[in-house]
Amino acid sequence: MNSKALQRQVNNPEVGVYECELHLKFRLIEDKSLLGDREQLLQVLLDALTEGNDDFLETLQASVKAQEISEFKASPQMRRQLMRLRNFSDTIQ
Amino acid sequence: MNSKALQRQVNNPEVGVYECELHLKFRLIEDKSLLGDREQLLQVLLDALTEGNDDFLETLQASVKAQEISEFKASPQMRRQLMRLRNFSDTIQ
Repeated sequence: MNSKALQRQVNNPEVGVYECELHLKFRLIEDKSLLGDREQLLQVLLDALTEGNDDFLETLQASVKAQEISEFKASPQMRRQLMRLRNFSDTIQ
Repeated sequence: MNSKALQRQVNNPEVGVYECELHLKFRLIEDKSLLGDREQLLQVLLDALTEGNDDFLETLQASVKAQEISEFKASPQMRRQLMRLRNFSDTIQ
């Protein structure tokens, strides 16, 4: 990596707020006992999807979207986080 | 075979094929440079979702479903995997 690329990485002020939509249908081999409440089910499905398609998972339909939006639509917590990230990148420039 | 799959095999013969649907909308603070092609975008979003809600992510809408289906709807690869899992659990019982 050249120094310019490194600098860009370190400084990286290029963060934004995105509105994302994920719509996935898939078949999955899974252990019945793991498919508990909604929160656990979500985690199990996310873990399986992170592994990708294999003998355990077959994607049927996948729609993935991300669109940059105004940061003023984000929650106060997110806006504060965004300010921290930008201030940090200013400091180390 | 990875250790997770092995563990799943050893502990539990109660595996089935599930048809799953995940529909999520959320706001996310992200580095623009990471939102590349569709495959990379999917991985970035899955990683963020696995971390859960925090200062970087705000869930707007979440629908999570999993319904057991006949294994004959699954691909030949998945059916073979399912047979392996069941045979293996017979062996160790």
